[in-house]
Amino acid sequence: MTLILALDFGGTKLAAAVVNVDSRKWLGYERRLSPAKADASTDLEIMRSLIYSVLQGTKPDAIGVSFGGPVDASTGTVRLSHHVVGWENIPLKHLLEDEFGVPVGVDNDANVAALGEHRFGAGQGYDSLFYITVSTGVGGGWILNGKPWRGAGGMAGEIGHIVVDPVGPVCLCGKRGCVERLASGPYIAQNAREILETEPHRRGGLRDGEVLRGLVGGNLTLLTGQLVAEAATAGDDLAKEVLHKAAWALGVGIGNVANLMNPQRFVLGGGVTKAGKDFWQVVRQVAQETALPEVDFEIVSAILGDDAPLWGGVAIASGILKIVG
Amino acid sequence: MTLILALDFGGTKLAAAVVNVDSRKWLGYERRLSPAKADASTDLEIMRSLIYSVLQGTKPDAIGVSFGGPVDASTGTVRLSHHVVGWENIPLKHLLEDEFGVPVGVDNDANVAALGEHRFGAGQGYDSLFYITVSTGVGGGWILNGKPWRGAGGMAGEIGHIVVDPVGPVCLCGKRGCVERLASGPYIAQNAREILETEPHRRGGLRDGEVLRGLVGGNLTLLTGQLVAEAATAGDDLAKEVLHKAAWALGVGIGNVANLMNPQRFVLGGGVTKAGKDFWQVVRQVAQETALPEVDFEIVSAILGDDAPLWGGVAIASGILKIVG
Repeated sequence: MTLILALDFGGTKLAAAVVNVDSRKWLGYERRLSPAKADASTDLEIMRSLIYSVLQGTKPDAIGVSFGGPVDASTGTVRLSHHVVGWENIPLKHLLEDEFGVPVGVDNDANVAALGEHRFGAGQGYDSLFYITVSTGVGGGWILNGKPWRGAGGMAGEIGHIVVDPVGPVCLCGKRGCVERLASGPYIAQNAREILETEPHRRGGLRDGEVLRGLVGGNLTLLTGQLVAEAATAGDDLAKEVLHKAAWALGVGIGNVANLMNPQRFVLGGGVTKAGKDFWQVVRQVAQETALPEVDFEIVSAILGDDAPLWGGVAIASGILKIVG
Repeated sequence: MTLILALDFGGTKLAAAVVNVDSRKWLGYERRLSPAKADASTDLEIMRSLIYSVLQGTKPDAIGVSFGGPVDASTGTVRLSHHVVGWENIPLKHLLEDEFGVPVGVDNDANVAALGEHRFGAGQGYDSLFYITVSTGVGGGWILNGKPWRGAGGMAGEIGHIVVDPVGPVCLCGKRGCVERLASGPYIAQNAREILETEPHRRGGLRDGEVLRGLVGGNLTLLTGQLVAEAATAGDDLAKEVLHKAAWALGVGIGNVANLMNPQRFVLGGGVTKAGKDFWQVVRQVAQETALPEVDFEIVSAILGDDAPLWGGVAIASGILKIVG
């Protein structure tokens, strides 16, 4: 029996799981929210307790780690976290190797999730694919020739910050009309809120923002991307318009990527992709219109959900064992 | 002595050259314009005469071919030419192998030129680069991990048809605001002409279109991208504006590609890239502004000029010889 330990440092949540290398069923699995005032030390402390809980006295043969932030995958050093303080230049691979005495691989979550979907999910059998997560942010991970492509500086995959509307709203990154600015959950909520706040009278009627207002009892600060999706499904025109723009942005981004890299598949995960049929229909149609007619591709839903980074960790650790052994 | 024959079917011109595998100096070199009413047969006939002229009775050990249009590189079959009729599904690799009895490799011109610049030009020592030609059209070729990346269907590299301005003018491809629609030579000329035709009175003064008018003696159909660049250098504001938009489009495209793939280098060739310092300054600045701050890259000029596809052909043929043994 060869045991793999997979870890997911997710920014807002932490997870650890153990699996036999040839099995698809977790032997142990623990997931916990990161506390509100977490720092790198508390995250590591919580993760340590999850690890010992899932290992139950056994010893892993290799460890694969997904980290929610920029990582130097060649050294396994975390560069920083955008969500949790104190992660600057933490040598996560070495810390874990010292503690457990087994080989460790560390990469950022988008790359690891892409690998997870490629090996065990919606990307099985596809040697070139782009995995996109549309959630709090919009990120991506490449599989080319069956292997992760990280870019020269480990920064590849940033579809969230390609510009699709140069006169669109300003993103946190400083540019206008990035995919993330139009399609991430928090920005979808913000875009709906801004229309409701700035055009309360111009628009009207039950189907135009009223469902959305109703869902939050008039308190617009409670709006979320998910509520916008629910209101759209219920027929709210304003919600539909905001969601349509999000799907359009994602579709243009995907079509542009198709023209540029011509992968076989796009695998889409993250909460926003659960926004319903209309959303998917617009994404697919706009992507097709944006790509050249000769460029073929499929856009499919990720199937591993929140476990994609853990399964990607399993793939990383298995890869290390093959090289070592 | 190991002889390499390199061929370039360029759409408007044809070239053949011979080189010793370890040398950087052509032993024979012939270039000829493709006749106005060329078809695949006449192109092949002209190329045959160029070949026998450069070979001078010697026999090549391998042949590397650049073709100006979509190619199935795995079989060496030309799919079509957008410039010359009759090229649909021509098995160019097999035709040449039958005639010369040596191994042949065929790929499309952007991929081959990228390989040429990578092996012998501005991309030497860079394992990941994107070569962009900005000329009659705008195309690109990838080198990733030191090898061409062609995409699942051989269509990768189409930076010319990624959308940078969704409300921009309509491109031949049917979309609005593609890089090619704003930055290719013929479209630069067309954009200048349209402003001169539709706003002859609103604009005025010696520095606003008058230099441009003067260069073509008032006959706007004679405008070219090169003349727009000349007028811009001479201080013509309208020409500067059109050229600035072209450089902006290219810069946004490059910045988006940098975020997505994070290559080390962008190598830019083609006539439009000779438009001068201001052009390059805008391309570099906009690309930098479009890319995330953590994404590093350089944008440099190609150095092989019109010979890039021939040198790429040499690289292809050398690669075949290594495999064959």
